[in-house]
Amino acid sequence: MVIVMDETATKGQIEAVELRLKEKGFQIHRVDGVTRTILGAIGDKRGIDLREFEVMEGVHEVLRITQPYKLASRTFHPDDSVIQVKGALFGGDHIAMIAGPCSIESEKQLYAIAQSIKNSGARLLRGGAFKPRTSPYSFQGLGIDGLKIMNSIADELGLATVSEMMEIGQLDAMIEYVDIIQVGARNMQNFPLLKELGNIKKPILLKRGLAATIEELLMAAEYIMSGGNYQIILCERGIRTFETYTRNTMDISAIPVTQSLSHLPIIADPSHGTGRRDHVAPMARAAIAAGANGLIIEVHHDPDHALSDGAQSLYPNQFSRLMQELQTIAWTIGKTL
Amino acid sequence: MVIVMDETATKGQIEAVELRLKEKGFQIHRVDGVTRTILGAIGDKRGIDLREFEVMEGVHEVLRITQPYKLASRTFHPDDSVIQVKGALFGGDHIAMIAGPCSIESEKQLYAIAQSIKNSGARLLRGGAFKPRTSPYSFQGLGIDGLKIMNSIADELGLATVSEMMEIGQLDAMIEYVDIIQVGARNMQNFPLLKELGNIKKPILLKRGLAATIEELLMAAEYIMSGGNYQIILCERGIRTFETYTRNTMDISAIPVTQSLSHLPIIADPSHGTGRRDHVAPMARAAIAAGANGLIIEVHHDPDHALSDGAQSLYPNQFSRLMQELQTIAWTIGKTL
Amino acid sequence: MVIVMDETATKGQIEAVELRLKEKGFQIHRVDGVTRTILGAIGDKRGIDLREFEVMEGVHEVLRITQPYKLASRTFHPDDSVIQVKGALFGGDHIAMIAGPCSIESEKQLYAIAQSIKNSGARLLRGGAFKPRTSPYSFQGLGIDGLKIMNSIADELGLATVSEMMEIGQLDAMIEYVDIIQVGARNMQNFPLLKELGNIKKPILLKRGLAATIEELLMAAEYIMSGGNYQIILCERGIRTFETYTRNTMDISAIPVTQSLSHLPIIADPSHGTGRRDHVAPMARAAIAAGANGLIIEVHHDPDHALSDGAQSLYPNQFSRLMQELQTIAWTIGKTL
Amino acid sequence: MVIVMDETATKGQIEAVELRLKEKGFQIHRVDGVTRTILGAIGDKRGIDLREFEVMEGVHEVLRITQPYKLASRTFHPDDSVIQVKGALFGGDHIAMIAGPCSIESEKQLYAIAQSIKNSGARLLRGGAFKPRTSPYSFQGLGIDGLKIMNSIADELGLATVSEMMEIGQLDAMIEYVDIIQVGARNMQNFPLLKELGNIKKPILLKRGLAATIEELLMAAEYIMSGGNYQIILCERGIRTFETYTRNTMDISAIPVTQSLSHLPIIADPSHGTGRRDHVAPMARAAIAAGANGLIIEVHHDPDHALSDGAQSLYPNQFSRLMQELQTIAWTIGKTL
Repeated sequence: MVIVMDETATKGQIEAVELRLKEKGFQIHRVDGVTRTILGAIGDKRGIDLREFEVMEGVHEVLRITQPYKLASRTFHPDDSVIQVKGALFGGDHIAMIAGPCSIESEKQLYAIAQSIKNSGARLLRGGAFKPRTSPYSFQGLGIDGLKIMNSIADELGLATVSEMMEIGQLDAMIEYVDIIQVGARNMQNFPLLKELGNIKKPILLKRGLAATIEELLMAAEYIMSGGNYQIILCERGIRTFETYTRNTMDISAIPVTQSLSHLPIIADPSHGTGRRDHVAPMARAAIAAGANGLIIEVHHDPDHALSDGAQSLYPNQFSRLMQELQTIAWTIGKTL
Repeated sequence: MVIVMDETATKGQIEAVELRLKEKGFQIHRVDGVTRTILGAIGDKRGIDLREFEVMEGVHEVLRITQPYKLASRTFHPDDSVIQVKGALFGGDHIAMIAGPCSIESEKQLYAIAQSIKNSGARLLRGGAFKPRTSPYSFQGLGIDGLKIMNSIADELGLATVSEMMEIGQLDAMIEYVDIIQVGARNMQNFPLLKELGNIKKPILLKRGLAATIEELLMAAEYIMSGGNYQIILCERGIRTFETYTRNTMDISAIPVTQSLSHLPIIADPSHGTGRRDHVAPMARAAIAAGANGLIIEVHHDPDHALSDGAQSLYPNQFSRLMQELQTIAWTIGKTL
Repeated sequence: MVIVMDETATKGQIEAVELRLKEKGFQIHRVDGVTRTILGAIGDKRGIDLREFEVMEGVHEVLRITQPYKLASRTFHPDDSVIQVKGALFGGDHIAMIAGPCSIESEKQLYAIAQSIKNSGARLLRGGAFKPRTSPYSFQGLGIDGLKIMNSIADELGLATVSEMMEIGQLDAMIEYVDIIQVGARNMQNFPLLKELGNIKKPILLKRGLAATIEELLMAAEYIMSGGNYQIILCERGIRTFETYTRNTMDISAIPVTQSLSHLPIIADPSHGTGRRDHVAPMARAAIAAGANGLIIEVHHDPDHALSDGAQSLYPNQFSRLMQELQTIAWTIGKTL
Repeated sequence: MVIVMDETATKGQIEAVELRLKEKGFQIHRVDGVTRTILGAIGDKRGIDLREFEVMEGVHEVLRITQPYKLASRTFHPDDSVIQVKGALFGGDHIAMIAGPCSIESEKQLYAIAQSIKNSGARLLRGGAFKPRTSPYSFQGLGIDGLKIMNSIADELGLATVSEMMEIGQLDAMIEYVDIIQVGARNMQNFPLLKELGNIKKPILLKRGLAATIEELLMAAEYIMSGGNYQIILCERGIRTFETYTRNTMDISAIPVTQSLSHLPIIADPSHGTGRRDHVAPMARAAIAAGANGLIIEVHHDPDHALSDGAQSLYPNQFSRLMQELQTIAWTIGKTL
């Protein structure tokens, strides 16, 4: 932590800050510059609240210099983490594709979709069983029955499964039927949930919140990792900005930035990121071109009659064509899909 | 719902949209304008996904005309809801003040603060027992022991209590010890939690999420109300914008806007909204001047040693002075505090 | 400037940064902490681009510690600047009111409005002659003829005048006919324009850009002041956020924050900040309660037939009532209006 | 325009709106739905202010259905516009590359850079002569001398030139020495400037403002086009969001969205969009993969000593490698670079 004093700070004000720093266990390096004094506070105090010093008299600004996350940081883990799920690899030069419907609607529906995405080269099947709907009047998902359907189809076709967990009470079902547990954007800072997920051994797909900074996304990963579960796949799915033409604004630059800060893999969700079928393919290509370690894409064999998110689901033939484009782009930058 | 066709839409495209509307149970009013056709779709379908029509060929834009919330809307409940909690009134011309520390730290701490805020005229005591901290390395709260301390002090002093609930497992303790259950900004769209709160009889203090629109805040209230619990107090506590000088940007205009859309009372939280003690009083005055039905303010008798949020807590004498200013402002616009 | 090195930075990388700092004329204070090295760079180099160091190998972060503005800063000018315009005072404990129509439409229109706002206690008349319209198909203003009308009416009634300048070519007319020259939000970073305004002696009303940080607003003021014109009145008029219910989001907290950083007066524009007549009064009261040094409000005697912005203009009787409320609020916090 | 009345609107309120619509010259189609009345207003009134109706009693919402731009819209110009500048083509399946230094510093500097970008395959040379700097204390550019240097080097090497115009007074020099006139992000809504550019015959590179919606970008293009100059190349260069890790957030999705709304070509500026050299290549690839019609990239042979923006400039060998990757990506989606 570096505390920058006002140019007009008095001797007494500077000493008061020094005293408080000592109380908190910091070592102090004081630099008296031409116009102002700077206090370097040395010591690893990740839980400290900078504002405590900011509001002291004579303080101009307080600057944090330690990253608030450690386990998620690339500093102490320079190599990419590669997370393996039933043969699919996320991280390093490996790109993995997750595809499937927004909601599991029936065995027939899911089987048709699962088979088509497998034929196109995806190895992971997504499907929602517990749905976070903004309206209490919308379809809420099939629940555990949905997970059982997905589990049995994935087994038959040799696919891994991904599904979203919405609350702690769903954990047992998740552990039994799902290969990757997804934490949705609205739960990215649901701290009790994150803590529980730190105690299990399954890979977690952690989506960035609509208004979460990259640092907050990494702090959420840290929450899970601090419990002992290091298998985190991050996911960019769009942030909220002033632009209303698209549902959200996909922050493609978050992909290279996050990779420079963290060793964890990061994938992108162009379906939720754009909200419209016609923009999914361009943004999927953009994410892979920017270095994403994978994608999660909504595909439906009959989107006009989907029970949720039909408008952002690709038709199977669109997905198949997209997969071919993505393979060339991946190859161009030295990756394999 | 109004569907605006492209100026270049073909006869076949228009008919395809009409067909789909009929399938979904809408009545259609077709207007053939000078340059384009507009289809008015009549029928109350709150759960519908507009994008389903947006992605159809020849469709220019789809406009929703029914508000997605009903119970929270002022349309069918033109008078202000007034929520009464142990003699304090939120709503109409009544302003109620909630004050207290960020976290309950000890009986001694809470007692000192509770007494001081009571002397200044506040009738509701806040105190966190379960803390949502962005860092896993920070103080996490006293839990149920904290709630017991608060409950017994409030009883002695004749104050009502407010505390935040973070997950469904805390509900029983909340019902036993707390008068108003707070839903934090990060849980505003925790739908399983909202559903549970719909089944109880306690007033809920529902905070606006950092990236939530006013409409989404009202939809979250609707989630609770659709379960049968109509006692909702909304709370503006700052939104996330590009401005980084303040922790968040308090959206003061959300106060009159929400009041025009909904009959529910809305209060403001200038402590979290600004994050710094020196800006709390100006923003508290601004919120009351804009018509807020109350405030929730952090007060600490020794903020330098507070275990959380000390930097944004007022000293008791600052709070006392603020209360006097607020009373005059309230009186100016015909309200009582 | 403080340069924080990576925890894994090599000796060579640290030396390369030190060398570059010396080249640029900085003195270096090096602090070797437990986990990383920090380089304090001493020297007043306001024009430097921090990113030059950020992209060097082994650099974790670069933190600026000198404010990029100096003349606008409160550090070297601790007392409030008070700007006087024909008897009206902006700054310190003085609040001044500017009111009038969006556009000057005719002598008759302006006279009626000017008289009514004078009766309500305003001493400054606003009126647009050159209009920045987002659509090339909208009314563009009366130009110099409008300024002449305003000037003659203001003279007769003893009011001062405020009008917006859109480009350098309008400067001569402005100097001749206008008492305060307004720089609109879209021109806040029109640097050639700011430079010209630094060379004249008239007070400038400088509006914050829709996406401008408080620091950028102060930098824009600095641009003008560096030319020698110190009479700047800042103006908060709403920023662009994700919330779409209001046209913009008025950042009321920018008022106390700016006052803590700068000695310049700051006023608010609730008409453009909200865009709707029914929200102007609450936000006007909020701004004054938060400490604003004045307001600029659109008033029209016949807003239904106004040529621009009628929907956000108050009726004269609404303005009159508002003025009375504002006087009490001002008095409550020790100011005079 | 569609006017949605409140569910509780009275007969008198509906008639008042109808009357006003007639006054303004609209034809009315009235639909009385189950719960509310909707008024379809037919007539082409691009300059109308929707809020005029929004603030009327009994009005719930007013929805615009005509796009506010016409010349820029794809509706009446379904084919892509292709803009040709000395053999380089922007639009359709053609991708053109603009590269060069942020500022023209000297003949030697510019020649070295121009030659290297030409060898890598770029056909357009950028270079700033008039610099919009946020600080009055920074390097302000070489002015007309810079333009002359650029013009003569480009002639010799057979390149076209691009440079930014900051104010109307620079127009003559621009017309004489520059092939494409750039309007910077801060000037996107400088309406007097846009009008002047409508009267000339040069292609304009129009950058999206930091806080401009896609619709506002197209309205700015419309401003120029309404004067008769149809050669507009749009440019996405990052918008301002809450994320502070990157200087701006590049809105890659704006590329396919703009292409669906308009026939004009759109390119991307990953140098300003990211602000850091190490993120330029991933975002350049992303933009092309998303369908951009070109890029503008800062390249410097000695970025450590560049007078501006060195930190975001690529080294010539980085640019050369990037060009090869981009060619493959372009080919993958059926385009040529």
